[in-house]
Amino acid sequence: MEREKYFATRTRGMKRSVIRELLKLTSKPEVISFAGGLPAPKTFPVEDVRKAAIDVLDNSAALALQYGSTEGDANLRRELAGVMKADGIDADPDHILVTTASQQGLDLISKVFLDPGDTCVCGLPTYLGGLQAIKSYEGVPVGTPLDDEGMIPEELEKTLDTLEAQNRKPRFLYIIPDFQNPAGVTIPLARRKRIVEIASNRDCLIVEDTPYRQIRFSGEHQPTFQSLAPERVISLYTFSKILLPGFRVGWVYGPDWVVDKMVMAKQSSDLCTSPFCQAIAARMLSEGVLEKGLAETIKLYKHRCALMLKCLDENLSGIPGVHWTRPEGGLFLWLRLPKGNNTTELFQEAIDMNVAYVPGSAFYPEGDDHTGMRLNFSYSDDDKIIEGVRRLSALIRKTVGK
Amino acid sequence: MEREKYFATRTRGMKRSVIRELLKLTSKPEVISFAGGLPAPKTFPVEDVRKAAIDVLDNSAALALQYGSTEGDANLRRELAGVMKADGIDADPDHILVTTASQQGLDLISKVFLDPGDTCVCGLPTYLGGLQAIKSYEGVPVGTPLDDEGMIPEELEKTLDTLEAQNRKPRFLYIIPDFQNPAGVTIPLARRKRIVEIASNRDCLIVEDTPYRQIRFSGEHQPTFQSLAPERVISLYTFSKILLPGFRVGWVYGPDWVVDKMVMAKQSSDLCTSPFCQAIAARMLSEGVLEKGLAETIKLYKHRCALMLKCLDENLSGIPGVHWTRPEGGLFLWLRLPKGNNTTELFQEAIDMNVAYVPGSAFYPEGDDHTGMRLNFSYSDDDKIIEGVRRLSALIRKTVGK
Repeated sequence: MEREKYFATRTRGMKRSVIRELLKLTSKPEVISFAGGLPAPKTFPVEDVRKAAIDVLDNSAALALQYGSTEGDANLRRELAGVMKADGIDADPDHILVTTASQQGLDLISKVFLDPGDTCVCGLPTYLGGLQAIKSYEGVPVGTPLDDEGMIPEELEKTLDTLEAQNRKPRFLYIIPDFQNPAGVTIPLARRKRIVEIASNRDCLIVEDTPYRQIRFSGEHQPTFQSLAPERVISLYTFSKILLPGFRVGWVYGPDWVVDKMVMAKQSSDLCTSPFCQAIAARMLSEGVLEKGLAETIKLYKHRCALMLKCLDENLSGIPGVHWTRPEGGLFLWLRLPKGNNTTELFQEAIDMNVAYVPGSAFYPEGDDHTGMRLNFSYSDDDKIIEGVRRLSALIRKTVGK
Repeated sequence: MEREKYFATRTRGMKRSVIRELLKLTSKPEVISFAGGLPAPKTFPVEDVRKAAIDVLDNSAALALQYGSTEGDANLRRELAGVMKADGIDADPDHILVTTASQQGLDLISKVFLDPGDTCVCGLPTYLGGLQAIKSYEGVPVGTPLDDEGMIPEELEKTLDTLEAQNRKPRFLYIIPDFQNPAGVTIPLARRKRIVEIASNRDCLIVEDTPYRQIRFSGEHQPTFQSLAPERVISLYTFSKILLPGFRVGWVYGPDWVVDKMVMAKQSSDLCTSPFCQAIAARMLSEGVLEKGLAETIKLYKHRCALMLKCLDENLSGIPGVHWTRPEGGLFLWLRLPKGNNTTELFQEAIDMNVAYVPGSAFYPEGDDHTGMRLNFSYSDDDKIIEGVRRLSALIRKTVGK
């Protein structure tokens, strides 16, 4: 279209995502949707938000309703350092930048690090929003395979070797170590150490995206990349999955020389994250709302995940080439069909049967792998999980059996 | 520094603004600061925020605390269209994109339109945050002079001719038509029409930034650029100055083909603006809080502006080459010293006398004009305005008289 000439190069290619258009179909009330990435509304601590909001308006309205510093509310940053310390990270509040949730963290990292054509390496499949942020600065996400234990060090080395042979040095590795979106897999400690070693040998930064980390319902807590290699790891956090998404509050933690540039980048991006939401969040943290709420959230998601797995086991066990992951936490699992199947094409049939998922191609930079689908287990209640998996399984059995 | 090599080109040059470092000195309690751009906290409708927040939590917590659409809350967009209609714009809610206040509007416009080296034309002096957004995408702000009636059409033509001769086509004109930041000047209708004509002849888009427009305390309301040329104007709005800054809620309005790209850009920037803050703002608008509050804000700022002007008249009249603007609204006025004076150098002396302003060089892309200073009249109470202008005038009389 002629109007494209008005736009910057990075914008000209930008199209409304096909996937997003497809997902609009899932909003019909009769559709049971495993597509969204939404937390269960019943986990929102509405009463605590009310109490904290009133408290903030009673005692510090002049500050909370005013502009705030780009770095973020000092009380909140202190609380956040506490959250990180409880997770084994010796966090300095001065290295924390409060962001407009972690999508902004991804945007600022891309803004700060990526020139057009610059590469970053990510495990495939990977979070759609991460790919979008990288691409929006004309960066090039380069995939490396995952297995049921996340990023594979040997494969990562091969990917880095290939890039090196092309004289392309990745700006960073993008890793979601815990209950990865979309695959639901977690990297064990030995692999984390090996990946740090590889990054260190190649002088490569690591971006650790950890939105689900606190939602572990089985298995053992693994140390963060941040605790293993603070000098080269930039960690992204958000309240969206562990407290509530509606504040749009997250944070970034990393070496001072990185955070410093991110502060400058954020200043021109949105000046500051809502001081009102920050003040309420700080108040809630100081009252212990996060821990209390997390215990409930973990209980609920553990139950829902187990139920979805049970339904999948009952309905789809033994079909050759149909495989799904068994998450130890988070919100998602990943189901793969045998080669030759296409979950993007299958989507319309699923909608016709009133069930939805995210077609897996969304999580590949080139959109060229169509065998997977992402299933969310956090949002739907028991009846919907049971009935939704029944419908989906019927479709899969029919398709794969063809 | 060696670490600079890790960053993108756009980031390497990024430095903490000298001005911001200077402004840290203004936070000492004994300093009377005319430097900030803060609204008066007494204008914040705290009780209305409380009522709306409780109402939202009682009636729509599950939506307000959840993720929202990138475009923004449907109720809020309907209310915003109403605000625009009251201002003579036939606004379609579907052309509204809710942003994380208007700084994000500037960021998204720059992201969508600017390749490295692309120019945009702005009246000088101009808003620091606009310059930062443009530069953060390696865009090049090109200045054109202002006078007491804002952007000068004849000068604009000259600037565009010069650019054309260099084969550089500006991506947009950046204009703050009403009570411009920092100069406090307003463009009269005839000039607006002429500027639209020029933009139209050269097929150039106009970015109209209007954070203060509703705060007019004298003179006549001028039609927006949006109402004059909807096909080529992108308008930026924010609640920060007319309601409160702490929500970080603003909006963009423009042709669908522009807003469409901005929606995509925002999706990877921060997914959505806080649905909680949006829901509260929508509730407040539907209760008429904006109009009610604006009447009070206008009354207060009118008084404070008149007082500052009276003090300047009494203290500085008749000094050759000392000139200040007489705003009909907004938050700022602009004071210029005779050529050869340097308000950046003078700043330390001002701080020693416990009074502060923003050195004018901050509002020039190259930071090369040092004769001006921005004075804010919205934040300080009467006593401070009187005493602050007394101190500042003493300094100016001493300096200019040298």
